[in-house]
Amino acid sequence: MPKKIAVLAGDGIGPEIVAEAIKVLSFINTDMNLGLVFENALIGGAAYDAFGTPLPQTTLNLCKNADAVLLGAVGGPKWEPLAHAVRPERGLLGIRSELNLFSNLRPAILYPQLVDASTLKPEVVSGLDIMIVRELTGGIYFGQPRGVHVAENGEKVGINTKIYSESEIRRIAHSAFKIAQKRHKKLCSVDKANVLEVTELWRSVMTEVGKEYPDVQLSHMYVDNAAMQLVRAPKQFDVIVTSNMFGDILSDIAAMLTGSIGMLPSASLDANAKGMYEPIHGSAPDIAGQGIANPLATILSVAMMLRYTFNQPEAAERIERAVNTALDSKVRTADIYSEGMIKVSTSGMGDAVLNAL
Amino acid sequence: MPKKIAVLAGDGIGPEIVAEAIKVLSFINTDMNLGLVFENALIGGAAYDAFGTPLPQTTLNLCKNADAVLLGAVGGPKWEPLAHAVRPERGLLGIRSELNLFSNLRPAILYPQLVDASTLKPEVVSGLDIMIVRELTGGIYFGQPRGVHVAENGEKVGINTKIYSESEIRRIAHSAFKIAQKRHKKLCSVDKANVLEVTELWRSVMTEVGKEYPDVQLSHMYVDNAAMQLVRAPKQFDVIVTSNMFGDILSDIAAMLTGSIGMLPSASLDANAKGMYEPIHGSAPDIAGQGIANPLATILSVAMMLRYTFNQPEAAERIERAVNTALDSKVRTADIYSEGMIKVSTSGMGDAVLNAL
Ligand SMILES: CC(C)[C@H](C(=O)O)[C@@H](O)C(=O)O
Ligand SMILES: CC(C)[C@H](C(=O)O)[C@@H](O)C(=O)O
Repeated sequence: MPKKIAVLAGDGIGPEIVAEAIKVLSFINTDMNLGLVFENALIGGAAYDAFGTPLPQTTLNLCKNADAVLLGAVGGPKWEPLAHAVRPERGLLGIRSELNLFSNLRPAILYPQLVDASTLKPEVVSGLDIMIVRELTGGIYFGQPRGVHVAENGEKVGINTKIYSESEIRRIAHSAFKIAQKRHKKLCSVDKANVLEVTELWRSVMTEVGKEYPDVQLSHMYVDNAAMQLVRAPKQFDVIVTSNMFGDILSDIAAMLTGSIGMLPSASLDANAKGMYEPIHGSAPDIAGQGIANPLATILSVAMMLRYTFNQPEAAERIERAVNTALDSKVRTADIYSEGMIKVSTSGMGDAVLNAL
Repeated sequence: MPKKIAVLAGDGIGPEIVAEAIKVLSFINTDMNLGLVFENALIGGAAYDAFGTPLPQTTLNLCKNADAVLLGAVGGPKWEPLAHAVRPERGLLGIRSELNLFSNLRPAILYPQLVDASTLKPEVVSGLDIMIVRELTGGIYFGQPRGVHVAENGEKVGINTKIYSESEIRRIAHSAFKIAQKRHKKLCSVDKANVLEVTELWRSVMTEVGKEYPDVQLSHMYVDNAAMQLVRAPKQFDVIVTSNMFGDILSDIAAMLTGSIGMLPSASLDANAKGMYEPIHGSAPDIAGQGIANPLATILSVAMMLRYTFNQPEAAERIERAVNTALDSKVRTADIYSEGMIKVSTSGMGDAVLNAL
């Protein structure tokens, strides 16, 4: 049985970086005889422009029938004036929700070759290796009621609802504890239990699930403190588990600690490790089409796909090693360039990884 | 007419740091004949222990009748098992809400003497001077419905509601634009308008109010990006305005950039500049009672009080200059200590400021 990958390049730099990732993945596919087949579809602004919706039914069907989805990025200023329901982001959120991809893994790893690219002092970040586990299909992103309505006094009122059920918290807790077990066995759950009742429930379910994982050391932190600790002493963290909105913010901080968000992949998994893989950076419309975007986050997303969905750890490691070798050879895209390095284009970086495979 | 200050020392290190701030303020009060009178009351865990509530009616009345409130900090592990409604934090949130202190000013300034204390590289943070304006009496902190209930299927569900009306957004917008006018005339409004309808309303009201301030350059940023930009290039910001929850997180990041949250004051103002002043750090129960906490954030909060509520800019500047002089003389509490400096206690730091006045 061939294994199907839905390829959604999306908007902005999406097509450029996805092209490089597919270049690398096709090579590995042939070389290691993995039996992967690719099929492209539109999503986000590109889909809106073609079909008037950011998530066409054909795209959704393709994703549902695929074993994994590779996504570039969605969105851009062009579509910002659109109504909420048809914005590019809705396409991404729609897939997450429709495919039940509740567990979002966002590793933040500092590559030693790039330690100077971080704005933090080397001693604070060198060796950094954090895994953020973000709940991805619940919370304030999807809670009802939501929207803007006109109140009795005639003024507009905006509402969104942060809502979590025990079972939603429990399943993301299990994901996070299992990941912690395979790492350094430290899990920090981030909430705002001193103010928000929903996160009080979050905290108590985390604690309860924790009893099933006595080998993992569970701690709790308020989100404001966690944001601060990521800047103060990020190496204190091993695995962080948190809600959709807090995870959005914290994972971007963690990413930035590593010097460039152009380096960081992500996986969004359902209960059976079917998943969507994407760089954590956005569609970067300001540099789209120039061939200067960093494809490494997308290439590393493919490595995560091979590891989590296709259970091919060797293939994943081969790609990760090749990325390391490329960095050792001093090639750098503009976002991670520093003096003495060799500046390359998007495809130049893809080639460097390919050659190192 | 004497001007009344309600002094709420609170929990943990609260009493120690407030004592130093009062020492400094009493001196200025006499020296400059300001006519300030002080009255103490309990809040937070201390109030709960004495009266079974974190915000006794007497404390609230005192605050309502005062011109300004000086607060230390509330909370600690001792009270964490308590029900939400009587937690120490509820005392703080209660005053904010009851006194209508909707505009929370959190400056993040890097003192050149402390540039080494930051975990960020000196070139990234030196000269940093950001003002965060946080909406403080609305949003998900106070929105209804809230709480944990049992759903039909028997499982618990937690809910909080992020809600803003146009008028709530408009008044914090005016606060922020006015502050930007007195600074570098750049205002960045932070939201998550691509996902949350309530923040779409936020963005449109900000834009609308912005038309009344053509001299201020308004920009918008998503909260995840803002968190990242604070780590990547914080000096791009002048004034940031954002909602209660996002402001909680972003102001702690901004604070940490400066090397120590032990240095940072805050003001929470109503429509008439009546206000509560407090350090942005917490009650630090781990070091409470040891006489090693940094009192400068509280002393600088007193300077903000003199500036914003009592319209005494000279007195405020005198205190701020004295803090600078104290730092120049190399005295440091433990949190900002580095080699070659002189380590002092909480009261040692208070004395150093007093002597420099
Ligand atoms: C594009 C946006 C909807 C998305 C999110 O907020 O989840 C992005 O910021 C992310 O983190 O993947
Ligand atoms: C103590 C807590 C309720 C408070 C808040 O979340 O507002 C604190 O973190 C702050 O920022 O002042």
